[in-house]
Amino acid sequence: MSLVIVGTVAFDAIETPFGKTDKILGGAATYIALAAAKLGSQANIVSVVGGDFPADHMQLLQNNKIDTRGIEIIKEGKTFFWSGRYHNDMNSRDTLITELNVLAGFNPVLPAAYQQSEFLMLGNLTPSIQKQVIEQFNKRPRLIVMDTMNFWMDSAWDDLLEVIGMVDVLTINDAEARQLSGEYALIKAARKILQMGPEFLVIKKGEHGALLFHKNEVFFAPALPLEEVFDPTGAGDTFAGGFIGYLAQSGDISFSNMKRAIIYGSAMASFTVEKFGIEGLQALNNGELENRIQRFFDMVQFDIKIK
Amino acid sequence: MSLVIVGTVAFDAIETPFGKTDKILGGAATYIALAAAKLGSQANIVSVVGGDFPADHMQLLQNNKIDTRGIEIIKEGKTFFWSGRYHNDMNSRDTLITELNVLAGFNPVLPAAYQQSEFLMLGNLTPSIQKQVIEQFNKRPRLIVMDTMNFWMDSAWDDLLEVIGMVDVLTINDAEARQLSGEYALIKAARKILQMGPEFLVIKKGEHGALLFHKNEVFFAPALPLEEVFDPTGAGDTFAGGFIGYLAQSGDISFSNMKRAIIYGSAMASFTVEKFGIEGLQALNNGELENRIQRFFDMVQFDIKIK
Repeated sequence: MSLVIVGTVAFDAIETPFGKTDKILGGAATYIALAAAKLGSQANIVSVVGGDFPADHMQLLQNNKIDTRGIEIIKEGKTFFWSGRYHNDMNSRDTLITELNVLAGFNPVLPAAYQQSEFLMLGNLTPSIQKQVIEQFNKRPRLIVMDTMNFWMDSAWDDLLEVIGMVDVLTINDAEARQLSGEYALIKAARKILQMGPEFLVIKKGEHGALLFHKNEVFFAPALPLEEVFDPTGAGDTFAGGFIGYLAQSGDISFSNMKRAIIYGSAMASFTVEKFGIEGLQALNNGELENRIQRFFDMVQFDIKIK
Repeated sequence: MSLVIVGTVAFDAIETPFGKTDKILGGAATYIALAAAKLGSQANIVSVVGGDFPADHMQLLQNNKIDTRGIEIIKEGKTFFWSGRYHNDMNSRDTLITELNVLAGFNPVLPAAYQQSEFLMLGNLTPSIQKQVIEQFNKRPRLIVMDTMNFWMDSAWDDLLEVIGMVDVLTINDAEARQLSGEYALIKAARKILQMGPEFLVIKKGEHGALLFHKNEVFFAPALPLEEVFDPTGAGDTFAGGFIGYLAQSGDISFSNMKRAIIYGSAMASFTVEKFGIEGLQALNNGELENRIQRFFDMVQFDIKIK
């Protein structure tokens, strides 16, 4: 089934302890769409870029069967640019440059061809823009997944809560779950957040895995212990793209299928962090992905006879 | 099967955001022995206390079928005393008081009655004392598990490495694994540590679970997301006691049984942190424990068909 993705398509310049890049293709929608497309979902992007966005970047997306008709090109503008430097632990980073450029005036337009999509992924963006996209659907998508971050909790609280109230799945990290709920214990935080609207909550804990909450159930997915974390940029977006991409290609939004989707998202994110930018994700083939899924499965298996 | 436990039997005074205690029964060997005894292992303690150690504390241990003949009482001395204050996040704490007292001159003596024990748990202590105990066995125990901490990496590096080279299982936390190996990626850290001697390595990550490494295999056990973390004191020792207690009562030291042992250790630790001191562990019954083991099992289950 097809999937609409709203988010940034951007230039990133990244420094890690292992090297640095010039401006490379980045942005939340890029990672989400590539991950979802790898799993066989039809990914349709809604975004905006400037006249400086190279034709070969657009071609790369299209070569992955991603529909780019919803990416507005503002010829006289410049593409959103982010630059960051990761610390030695790879868990923290400094933002060096944020140039919003064309993103500052982003007015998302849902192409008519996207109206039939049953899945909607709202990448991390201004909540009011996320809301505008939901409202452009003639018929509400079957599943809306929303990613957001602490920045909007500090700067757009009311708008954020309004959009959270409109979605089915919210994905945030553990610190953000604590900030959003005012609760330290994640199980209490989850309970409060599930009362704000979403039926499902995914709490991302980076190298410590992810938790999926639904009613009184909780599922825990570990992160694979990796030899090398080369560049964490895009890991969260790849996770989200793998998650919703798996759901969209199967058309099954049950809790048990969401568990599988979390594992697929985690596995795909593990490829992203092993290379710079989208390299790891691009090079990924099905055999490698299935091998890694098997490793996740093996890593948590134990048999126990309850007396 | 029976189990020798070397470690502190102590007084703790604890402050958390939820309350504070006067001097209560604490110490690594206390938690380890209580956890192991709950699982049906014969736990035999080697430790030292002062003349101020109350008869009812000793009775409490004995009521749990713990052999206390190896606890030397130095009448004119005072029992080891630790006092600490936990911060609001419950993950960090300040040590307020450390009075070594009789522990300063601790000269462990293995009672003849303990010689037949096939399992040995070295609680966190001066490495040279841990070594003295190993050397008092006429026949090397079948399984030696060692707990230690960063303090000994800073102050007794050579002794520490020597003892690590003598044991089968090492349990440390993630920061300590990084310090011990000089590697940031835990999978690399584990590989180096396994070359130092132990066949198995357990990396404890607190609220993020635990990893068990053996040759090229890795097992991941989550931590249960808990409603309340009331007092983390003794969580690591309870984990270790549940781990070795499970192995000792079953007599099975295979990798698959170690996985189960990790889950039992994690489940028991989750009871310890819900109350002050040993209260949670003491009150625990089999039904509650089995329920929690089932929750661990359910939390990580997913079925996936690899194409």
